[in-house]
Order: sequence, then C-alpha cells, then structure tokens
Amino acid sequence: MASISTVRTYTGPEIDRMLESGDVRGKVSKNDLPTPALIVDLDAFEDNCRKMAGFVRGAGRAFRPHAKTHKCPAIAKYLISQGAVGVCAARLSEAAALAAHGVTGLLVTTAVIGRQKIERAIALGAMRPETIFVVDDAENARRLNEAASAAGLTLHVAIDLFVGNRTGVAPLAPAVAVGEVIDGLSNLRLAGIQAYAGQASHTVGFENRKLVSIEAMTPAVETRRMLERKGIPCPLLSGGSTGTYNIDAAIDGITELQPGSFLFMDLDYSRIGGQSGEIYDDFRNALFVIATVVSRPKADLAVVDAGYKAFSTDRPFPPRWRGGAEYPYGFAGDEHGRIALKDGQSPRTGDRLEFIIPHCDPTVNLYDRIYAVRGEQVEAVWPVAARGCSQ
Amino acid sequence: MASISTVRTYTGPEIDRMLESGDVRGKVSKNDLPTPALIVDLDAFEDNCRKMAGFVRGAGRAFRPHAKTHKCPAIAKYLISQGAVGVCAARLSEAAALAAHGVTGLLVTTAVIGRQKIERAIALGAMRPETIFVVDDAENARRLNEAASAAGLTLHVAIDLFVGNRTGVAPLAPAVAVGEVIDGLSNLRLAGIQAYAGQASHTVGFENRKLVSIEAMTPAVETRRMLERKGIPCPLLSGGSTGTYNIDAAIDGITELQPGSFLFMDLDYSRIGGQSGEIYDDFRNALFVIATVVSRPKADLAVVDAGYKAFSTDRPFPPRWRGGAEYPYGFAGDEHGRIALKDGQSPRTGDRLEFIIPHCDPTVNLYDRIYAVRGEQVEAVWPVAARGCSQ
Repeated sequence: MASISTVRTYTGPEIDRMLESGDVRGKVSKNDLPTPALIVDLDAFEDNCRKMAGFVRGAGRAFRPHAKTHKCPAIAKYLISQGAVGVCAARLSEAAALAAHGVTGLLVTTAVIGRQKIERAIALGAMRPETIFVVDDAENARRLNEAASAAGLTLHVAIDLFVGNRTGVAPLAPAVAVGEVIDGLSNLRLAGIQAYAGQASHTVGFENRKLVSIEAMTPAVETRRMLERKGIPCPLLSGGSTGTYNIDAAIDGITELQPGSFLFMDLDYSRIGGQSGEIYDDFRNALFVIATVVSRPKADLAVVDAGYKAFSTDRPFPPRWRGGAEYPYGFAGDEHGRIALKDGQSPRTGDRLEFIIPHCDPTVNLYDRIYAVRGEQVEAVWPVAARGCSQ
Repeated sequence: MASISTVRTYTGPEIDRMLESGDVRGKVSKNDLPTPALIVDLDAFEDNCRKMAGFVRGAGRAFRPHAKTHKCPAIAKYLISQGAVGVCAARLSEAAALAAHGVTGLLVTTAVIGRQKIERAIALGAMRPETIFVVDDAENARRLNEAASAAGLTLHVAIDLFVGNRTGVAPLAPAVAVGEVIDGLSNLRLAGIQAYAGQASHTVGFENRKLVSIEAMTPAVETRRMLERKGIPCPLLSGGSTGTYNIDAAIDGITELQPGSFLFMDLDYSRIGGQSGEIYDDFRNALFVIATVVSRPKADLAVVDAGYKAFSTDRPFPPRWRGGAEYPYGFAGDEHGRIALKDGQSPRTGDRLEFIIPHCDPTVNLYDRIYAVRGEQVEAVWPVAARGCSQ
C-alpha cells in the first residue's frame, strides 16, 4: 500500500492529541488514524456537493440538504457556502446541536410532540428565529402557538404531509384543514409544506422511481395549490432525496430539495439505478471505513477490527472492500469482521483495508469524528457534533 | 399510563440541564426523559448483577465481566463493588476511557496491533500496571516487549486462543509456542490464556450449547496444562459468556468468567433456551428504549420516534413492546418505527411506549447516556463514556 511520509513520526498518544485538537494538516496521514476510522475522501465529497448544488440552482429550486446524514456543523456550513439556504435536521436535539455551532436556516423534519419538546422548540426558535418546524395535527399547532405566544415569538411552521411513507397528515382536505388552523393562529406563520416520499427514494430503476415519486408528490403540489386558492400563502414545498432530486426538481410546484446521502453515497444508493444505466453513479462514493487486520487465526481467514459497532447493519448486504471483490467482508459480531481468503492471499496482520459502507446515515451515527482526507493526508477532523441526537 | 408527579414541574430546557449534570434524584421522572431514551430498570439490573456475581463466586471462579456491553464507568465500578476483579474491554480506546474514569483490573480482549497502538498500550500500562493485554502472535509479542522495555515497564499478557470463533492463535502446540516466546521476553509476563467461544454463547438449547462449549473450551484447558507442564506458569484461563456461564464454570481449569449481556439481557439471549426450558430466563430484561408516538398518519398506523439510530439492527427480529404483542414494531428508516394498529386501538400522538431491544451491546453503543430508573423515578444518569471507542 502506498504511504506518504509525514514531516516526522509521531507516537500513538501524540496522534490522539492532534486528532482531538484538529491540528492535523501536514502532520497526520491516513495511516496514522486509529482504526476503525470513518474517512471522507474530500475530492469525491466536494465533487458531489458541487454537482448537487449546481443542479438544484440550475433547476431554480432552493437547496436545503438534510443534515441527518452527516450531523456535522462543518459540513452544514460548507453546504451553505455552496449555496444551500440552510439544512434540515431530523430532530430538535440535532437542530439544537447544529445551531449551537452556528448553523442557520434549519428545518426540523419531525413534529415537536409534548410539552417539554415544545419548550425546547421555543428555545431554539428564540435563538434562530428563521427555524422552520413541522406540524401534522391541529391540536399540536395550537399548543405550539400557545407556547410561542407566551414567549412572545412567532414560529415558522410547515405542514408535514404523509405521501406514502413516514409521518404526516394526509394530503388535500385534511392537510388544508391543518393549514387553515395554522393560518388562524396568532404566533405561527405558515412556511408551507414538507413532503418526503421515502418509498420513492429507494425504488430501483429510474423510470419506476419517477412514476412512484410523481405519484407521491402530485397530491403535495395540489395541496399547496388548494391552500393558495384559499388565500393562504404557501411559499415552501420541500421534498426530494438523493434518489429523486432530478425527478422532483422537474415537478412544477416543488420549491426546495432536501437530499442528504449524495454527499457520501453508499452501497444502498448505488443499487437503485441511474437515469442512464443500472448503476446509480450520479455521485461518487466518498465515505469509507478503514479497518485493520488484527488476527489471522487460519490460512483462509483474516479478522478485521470493524463489526456491528463500525458499520450499520440495516441493509441486507455487507460492506464492500474499496479495491473490489478480492476481500469479501462478513460480519463477525460487535467488534469484528471476517475476510475469507483464498490460498496464498495476503493481507497480513497490521494491514489496513478500506470499505464502502452499506448505508451512510446510521453508520455516521456510530462515530464521533469524520476524518477529511485528501490523497494520503488528513486535512481536517470534523466532529459529528449531533451524533446520537435523535431526540 | 401511570405517572408520578415530580416535586415540581420542570421545562424541557430545565430537564436537559439536570440530565446533563446528573442532578436528577427526586426531580426527574421517566416521563420527563426526551425520547428515544435508553433506560435501565435498576431493580432488574441489580438482581442480574447479584445473581451472576453470586454464581461465579459460588463456583470458585474470578469474575471479570465484559464492559463492551455497557461502556459505562459507573457500571464497571458497581460490578467491582459486587466482587468483580475488574472488567474486560474490547479495545484499547475503550479500556483507556474506562481507566480515565478510575476503573481498574482491565483485560483488553483484542490484540494490540501496530506501532502506534502499542504506544497507546504502553501509556495505559503505565497508568494501570495491572492491565492485561492479549497476544496471538510471536512477532507482536516481541514488539510489545521492545516497547515495554524502552518504557521500563512490565506488561501482563494473555494468549488469545482461537476456539472456533473470532480471533487468536490455534490451541495446543501453536499457542504453546507463543507462550514460550512470551516466557522468554524480559518485559512481558504471561498472565495466562483468553478463550472466547462466541459460537457457543448463542447456540440454541442448553444441552447443545453445553456440547459446543465443552468442545471449544477443552483444548483451551489442555493448552493451559501443556504450558504448566513445561514449567511456564499460566494462572489465568478466562472464558465464558452469558450463554455459557453455568457451563464453563463447571469445566475444571477455567479460572475466570467474562460474561457481559447478563446485565441487561435482550431478545437475542432470551431465545437461546435455559437449563430448564425453552426460554432463557436466568436473567431479567433490564434495558429498554422509550419511544414516543410522533404521528398517526392513518387509523391503522402509529409512527414512533425510534428507528435505526435508536436500536441496533444486527438481529433478524425487531424490538418488542414491553407490554406484549399488542403493538408490533417494524423499522421505518433511520429515525422512525411503525406500529401497525387494529381498529380502534390507541396509542395517541404523544403516548410513550417502551421496547425490549433485540441486541444490547450495539444498541448501547448508539447512546451517550443510560438513564437508571427505579419505578417511575430516574435515580441516576450514567454516561456511556466509552461509546464509540472501538479503536
């Protein structure tokens, strides 16, 4: 394996201190990272960001990528520097962690349920008044309004629509009824609609996916029109995903896209098929886990130090060695993976192997840091500041 | 649902500050916890600890439970107060995090591979001289010795044996050869042998499991005898698991047990069968995730706020509602779960449901805190200080 010499040789504890402080540039190489390590290939990552941001801009839509994928303030701010209007956050605690690090333009994509969560939403709304919260229920809207009123705030809210998957109120009349309630409340301002069709994002085959997404999003577009026909302004319709960005951007009435996985890509998205072929290659794999061979119990078995705690296991396929099919990975429990070897194959104990991950979001949620790598050098350490913030 | 009134009503942000500081006793109830929340039922947990510690003591073995299950210094210290000689740690970074919080008697159960990891092991050995490291390769033993010698330290090492699963050197002659190398090195002291038979732990049916464990552990016992016949003292033979504790404790020559999951139990262990029946009920389920219903998109669907980021997904069965079969949980992506409802069933938006987890170790690794609950009250907040420490 290629290795680049660093300016000098550091000890393990010295490396740990540099990784902790983030003072790594020109000092720490990829081979210095303690494994399992989550790395992002900066060249691929920047290409992915530029491509998606450029596409969305060209399509005349707003770009509010979903931060549940990366949970990193550094990445959120980079995306905003590339033209994003802000970022989505799956939960209040995720949004609060991003806001605490200076991220703006937040859309919290799950409803805020219960008195104490509403009180936390008020605290976030006071800190970042542009934040948008979602609502799918009139009673919840009234409670948000009471709390906002008591705090002397106006909260921006979007109606969360159930478009076949996940959460929300049914489109058309039921959603319009919620919109009318919001419109009548003193301290809520209707920002518009959120409609996330998860069933579309992962439909295999571009033409199938297009049919599923159009079927899901058409009632969302119609709901927006119904509200506007009633004189209730509905500026926002936020939808889309990495699987449907170039489908939803062509649907008239969708104003904003909130894709997430395009940053990193993963094996799950690779298999859904692209516009021009069986492999979805609109974006490049940019996220990898480096593992080390820690034992060679038998001639045909190498054991690496990455198992269920290093890769999420929610997909029915394992991680794949970055170099190809030569080293097939199999899970071997919480802490280990097995590589079945043919006669005479390396690797040796101490060798490092990089793996493409099955599914990016829940894998990132296992790590406290993403190491940003260019070539062999570690350029930055990005704390996953909202890791574990699912509340 | 039953609810206990706290002394006064706190706001969400006030609750967050109390959970952060740990000042919760008499103030915070289970219903105040932001969800998804990982809780331990203290009554069940303490019963489990007492039962296992008492059993191991009665069997005349040492007790070094595996901390990879909980990653909490508070739990490690509690176990030591119950008679444990220390705790196992899966990795160096996990051991270091525990040691930094005052935990003693560490056995690091994965070999320390590579120059920088060896330097980190030396730092840990200097801080906690009783720490035991494992080795399965003569060359690795020599490198550890060189580093220990340069640092003026003596490191305790155990031979990691491959007994059918995971890592290690083959038993009998190959392991004895490694032992002879260690015995001849100036700055290593042979503590003994570690032999973990993961294939035995989860074998379904007590009699089957007994056969598998005895078959796996017999060569480990014989390896220990071979070393001692050569005049190489081998005081330690550490094995066992929650599945095999009462099997391995009856095998002459095994000196120490390192079970982990007995603390919490999970659906995975429940199904392996006990000595007296189809359900393994030696220990009680003590670990639960509280989720909240955040949306009711349809009459037959409740959506809760706990998905792949709240439960590990490495087992082929989903979480189970603590109350029984009434609310069947299905994963609905990174952040959500679906409860399929029959006509007229509650729950309503805002209701809380507690779930038994499929597999404890990788689920704990998703959370920064375990809330220790007795009845309705939160008695303590246990930081999962070694969360993510898989390096």
